[in-house]
Amino acid sequence: MLDQIHLLAAVTVLGVLEQAYFLLQVIHARRAYGISPPKISGPPEFERIFRAQVNSSEYFPIFLALLWQAGLFFHQGLAAALGLIYLCSRYWYFTGYKASSSGRLGPIYFSTGVLWVLVAVAALGLSHFFLTHYMGLNVLWLLAL
Amino acid sequence: MLDQIHLLAAVTVLGVLEQAYFLLQVIHARRAYGISPPKISGPPEFERIFRAQVNSSEYFPIFLALLWQAGLFFHQGLAAALGLIYLCSRYWYFTGYKASSSGRLGPIYFSTGVLWVLVAVAALGLSHFFLTHYMGLNVLWLLAL
Amino acid sequence: MLDQIHLLAAVTVLGVLEQAYFLLQVIHARRAYGISPPKISGPPEFERIFRAQVNSSEYFPIFLALLWQAGLFFHQGLAAALGLIYLCSRYWYFTGYKASSSGRLGPIYFSTGVLWVLVAVAALGLSHFFLTHYMGLNVLWLLAL
Repeated sequence: MLDQIHLLAAVTVLGVLEQAYFLLQVIHARRAYGISPPKISGPPEFERIFRAQVNSSEYFPIFLALLWQAGLFFHQGLAAALGLIYLCSRYWYFTGYKASSSGRLGPIYFSTGVLWVLVAVAALGLSHFFLTHYMGLNVLWLLAL
Repeated sequence: MLDQIHLLAAVTVLGVLEQAYFLLQVIHARRAYGISPPKISGPPEFERIFRAQVNSSEYFPIFLALLWQAGLFFHQGLAAALGLIYLCSRYWYFTGYKASSSGRLGPIYFSTGVLWVLVAVAALGLSHFFLTHYMGLNVLWLLAL
Repeated sequence: MLDQIHLLAAVTVLGVLEQAYFLLQVIHARRAYGISPPKISGPPEFERIFRAQVNSSEYFPIFLALLWQAGLFFHQGLAAALGLIYLCSRYWYFTGYKASSSGRLGPIYFSTGVLWVLVAVAALGLSHFFLTHYMGLNVLWLLAL
């Protein structure tokens, strides 16, 4: 069973490490700008780093949910590859947003695009499973007609 | 194995689509009220939409964790049905909160209630598994005495 | 299959109950200090409780992701035990932060330490799986040489 999920598990752990990196960047920024918790407002430089981390954190469960459904119901290797591309684009998003507010735009559009591809892959895999399971249709066989 | 989780997977993907809808609503509200990131404060109309999305986002991992334990250890169909009810109540919550601050109250109580039912279902399934696995008790058989 | 995940599932449900407790504490604090949603700022006493809940909520998906990979790829019992220690340290974090801003420091360092142990356990289990699966190496056998 584990050989059907080991790539998804590896990408999941890499994603956690990326989240840890973002959290450490916020701690670093809190010290650099002298903003002690529970405060969350400050100069724009701090607020951009803070919001970049919060935004990445909000998307993390969404990303994991899609990664695993796409990997389990369509193809593990494809889902894991898309997952790696997503994690890279999130890194670009974080560094871009840290530099300037507009610097977040390109990477956020790209990373959202990757998530929509994962949605499509998961939906395709699930649709195929439902059709085969409940209607006895073999979709691939139908396409070959 | 996939036939034991396909309904949970489908509800998970639907939940992701709902989160995407909430995130798009926030982007739309940011444009409508002219509030550029990283700012998160503004007129109450914007703050209600923003907080509705943040709150839904916070509950999303909790919801998924309960959905899957309830589905794996008690009954997939029941968990998926409760999951759909939860997603509907979250939609009512979002539209209610968007309209007025008190408009969030009814749906939030209802959706929290659904989560507590999922907790109970998951706890029941897990308790049954633990009793059978570690103590060799067949609870259903005991109830029949 | 369920006997390979029942301890992880039980710790997951306990984690959800802890999150529910934190959310109830915020609701209680909102009433005590008269801060109605969508407002999130107020006296430091309120902001500390609010931020303690938000922080715990942000770490929850990270915790679950590590718990499950460590349990599936290394050892379920060890991962579940570490998970319980993490949930205890999060409780200490919440009560410490509620009392004073510096009261969060000890428990947050400790709970982050537990997460890094879970990262190490998950990475070890995954590395072992990858080496065995792709290179036919039996690492335990190599260590015995």
